[in-house]
Amino acid sequence: MSENQISIQDIIAGIKPVEAAWRDEAKERTSQLVMPPRALGRLHDFSEKICAVQKTLRPDVSRKAVLIFAGDHGIMEEGFSPFPQEVTPEMIKTFLRDGAGINALATHVGAEVEVIDTGIIPDLDPGMLQGGHRLTICKTGRGTANFSRGPAMTRQEAEQCIVSGFQRTADLIGQGLQLLGTGDMGIGNTSPSAAIGAVLTQTPLKDMVGRGTGVDDPALKRKLEAIERGIAINRPDPADGLDVLARVGGFEIGGIAGCLLAGAYHGVPLVLDGFISTAGGLIAHSLCPRVLEYCFAGHCSQEQGHGHMLDFLGLEPILDLGMRLGEGTGAALAMSVLEAGVKMFNQVLTFAEAGVSEASS
Amino acid sequence: MSENQISIQDIIAGIKPVEAAWRDEAKERTSQLVMPPRALGRLHDFSEKICAVQKTLRPDVSRKAVLIFAGDHGIMEEGFSPFPQEVTPEMIKTFLRDGAGINALATHVGAEVEVIDTGIIPDLDPGMLQGGHRLTICKTGRGTANFSRGPAMTRQEAEQCIVSGFQRTADLIGQGLQLLGTGDMGIGNTSPSAAIGAVLTQTPLKDMVGRGTGVDDPALKRKLEAIERGIAINRPDPADGLDVLARVGGFEIGGIAGCLLAGAYHGVPLVLDGFISTAGGLIAHSLCPRVLEYCFAGHCSQEQGHGHMLDFLGLEPILDLGMRLGEGTGAALAMSVLEAGVKMFNQVLTFAEAGVSEASS
Repeated sequence: MSENQISIQDIIAGIKPVEAAWRDEAKERTSQLVMPPRALGRLHDFSEKICAVQKTLRPDVSRKAVLIFAGDHGIMEEGFSPFPQEVTPEMIKTFLRDGAGINALATHVGAEVEVIDTGIIPDLDPGMLQGGHRLTICKTGRGTANFSRGPAMTRQEAEQCIVSGFQRTADLIGQGLQLLGTGDMGIGNTSPSAAIGAVLTQTPLKDMVGRGTGVDDPALKRKLEAIERGIAINRPDPADGLDVLARVGGFEIGGIAGCLLAGAYHGVPLVLDGFISTAGGLIAHSLCPRVLEYCFAGHCSQEQGHGHMLDFLGLEPILDLGMRLGEGTGAALAMSVLEAGVKMFNQVLTFAEAGVSEASS
Repeated sequence: MSENQISIQDIIAGIKPVEAAWRDEAKERTSQLVMPPRALGRLHDFSEKICAVQKTLRPDVSRKAVLIFAGDHGIMEEGFSPFPQEVTPEMIKTFLRDGAGINALATHVGAEVEVIDTGIIPDLDPGMLQGGHRLTICKTGRGTANFSRGPAMTRQEAEQCIVSGFQRTADLIGQGLQLLGTGDMGIGNTSPSAAIGAVLTQTPLKDMVGRGTGVDDPALKRKLEAIERGIAINRPDPADGLDVLARVGGFEIGGIAGCLLAGAYHGVPLVLDGFISTAGGLIAHSLCPRVLEYCFAGHCSQEQGHGHMLDFLGLEPILDLGMRLGEGTGAALAMSVLEAGVKMFNQVLTFAEAGVSEASS
C-alpha cells in the first residue's frame, strides 16, 4: 500500500452510527401522509432509513450507480465450473458494450454502471469507455491463489483490495452519487463466497455451497470437497474478517467490502446484490458491524446459502424473484424500489395539505 | 344499457387463449442470452408471458397507465370504518392534484393515472384535469345498497358496471396503452371484496376479513358479522360471478373486472393491485377463466385474505412489501419490474453477439 492510503483502522474509526433522531423525524412525517397508518409498508421503512443515513427530511437518491467489482479465482484450477475463466474479461467487455443483464436493468432504473477491476488475470484497456460506463483498474493481483490448496492471498493483499474498493467508491461519492448498488463479476466466485459464508455465519458448508452458474451433481460434489479442503487447510479465523478474506476470499469480494465501508463512512446508502455481494457484506460486517445501518439487501438470490447470509446479518431482502445472475442485477432493481419510497416520502401530501378527513380514533 | 354497448357474452366470446407458440419462441431467445440458463429467474417468465400476450418477440410496455376505479358502498351505514365516506371524493381530488401515494409511484415508473368514477355518491367535475391525469364519469349508481341488508345492486347494474369498465379501458387501449395496472378507491370496499373472496374461493369468511384502513378489534367483529349476514341474506351463487357482484359487490369492483376483460379481449397485459383489485379479478375469472393468461399479480397485500385469493387464482405476486394502500400502488411498482424484464429481453446480447464463451455441457 502506498503511504497516503487510508488504513482499515482509520476507515472503521470514521464510521459513525446513523442518528436515530432523523429516523424519528421521518416517521413523524410518514404519520401525516394522506393514507392509513404506514399503508405503504416497507416503503416507509426504506424512506425513513434513507432519511437517517442522509441526515435529511428531503432525501434524494436520483444519482445512482451499480459498481461491479471484478476478480479471478485460483480455485478454477479444480475444474468444476461450467464456464471457462476467459468469461470474466469477456463479460466485462460486454458490460462496457451495454450488452449484459445489468446494463438493461441499470438503464431502466436510471443508474450508471462502473466496472472496477480489483484483480482479474488479463489486462483490459482502461480507455474502454462506451455508453458512459467506466472501467477502473485497481488490481491487487492477477487472480487469487487456489484456496483449496493454500491461502487465496496475503493479509496485506486482503487489506489492499478492501482499501482500493473503499478509495474508488469514495471518489465516486465525491462525484455526487447518492445511492450505490454492489455488483460482481468473476467466474468461480461462488466458491470463495460460500467459504466466507460458512465461516462467518457458522452455517454448515453443505448449506452454503450451491450450483453457481449451473454445476451438475458430480461437479457440485467436487466443488463442495474443494471448498471443504480449503477451509480445513486455511483455518480462517471467524472472529477476523480480514483473515477470512485473505485465506478463502476473492479480490472483488474485498472490493465490495471496501465499497460498503465507503458508503457507511461517507453516509451514502448502499444496496447489496446477491450471494457474492453479501459475502462482501459479511467481511465488512465482521470489520465494522455498524456498516449494516447503511445497507439494504436488494434481493434474495436463488443461490443456496444467500438466505442464510441474510438471516445472519438480519437483513430482509427487498425483492425475491428467483434471480441468480449477480452483476448487480438484484441491487439495480431494488434501487428503483428504494427510489420509489423516497419519492413517495417527498411528494405525497399530508392530510392537512390535501384537505382529506382523518380517521376517527 | 344503451343499444350499442357490447354484451358480457360478446366480451367473453372475444377473449382468445394466449398463443403458446409465441412463448416458446421467446423462451428460445432467452436461452441464447449472455448469462447462465434463466439466471434472471422470474424476469424471464414475465418477459415471455408479455411476448405471448403481445404476439411479438419485440415486446413493448413503455406506454403504461394505472386505472383507478372508484365507487361508494352502502355497507358504510354499519359504521365500522374508521374513515368517513367523504374520503372517497376527497382522495379522488387528491389523485387529480398529484398528491397521493399512487401519484408518486406512478410518476416514478412512468405510468399515467386515470380515475374512473363507476359509482361514487357525489358528482365531481369531469373537467378536473390536472397534471395530465384524467377523470371519467361513468356511474352505474350513486353508491351501492347496503349488502348486509339486501343486494348491493341489481343484476343489470352489475353487468353495466362491468361493461362500462370494459368500454373505458378499451378506449384507453385504443389510445395506445401497452400495460395496464388496476387500482381502486372506495371507502368501505374491503367489505365487498372480502365477501366476494369468501364466496368465490370458498374460503372461510374469517380468513378473508381484515382490518382494511385500520379497524380496531370491536369494529373488526362488527365488520365480520355484517358481511356474514350479507352473505346469508343474499345467498350469492358461487358459480355465477355476475350474481356474486350484484349481491355483495361494488361498482368499482365490477369496473375492475371489466378492465381485466378488456385487456384480455384486446391482448394487453394487465397487473392486478391488491385485495380489491383481486376481488375484481375473481369476478372476471368467474366469467372467463382465460383472463388470467393476460394477468400478473402485482404484489401480495398486507390485507388478510389477499393471499388466499392469489392462491385460488394460481397467481404468484411480483412484490411482497407489506403494502395495503390500494389506489393501484402495488400494481404501479410491479409494472416497473415487468418493464425491466421486457427491456432485458430486448436489449441483452446473445452469447454469439457478445463473443462470450458458452458453458461446457
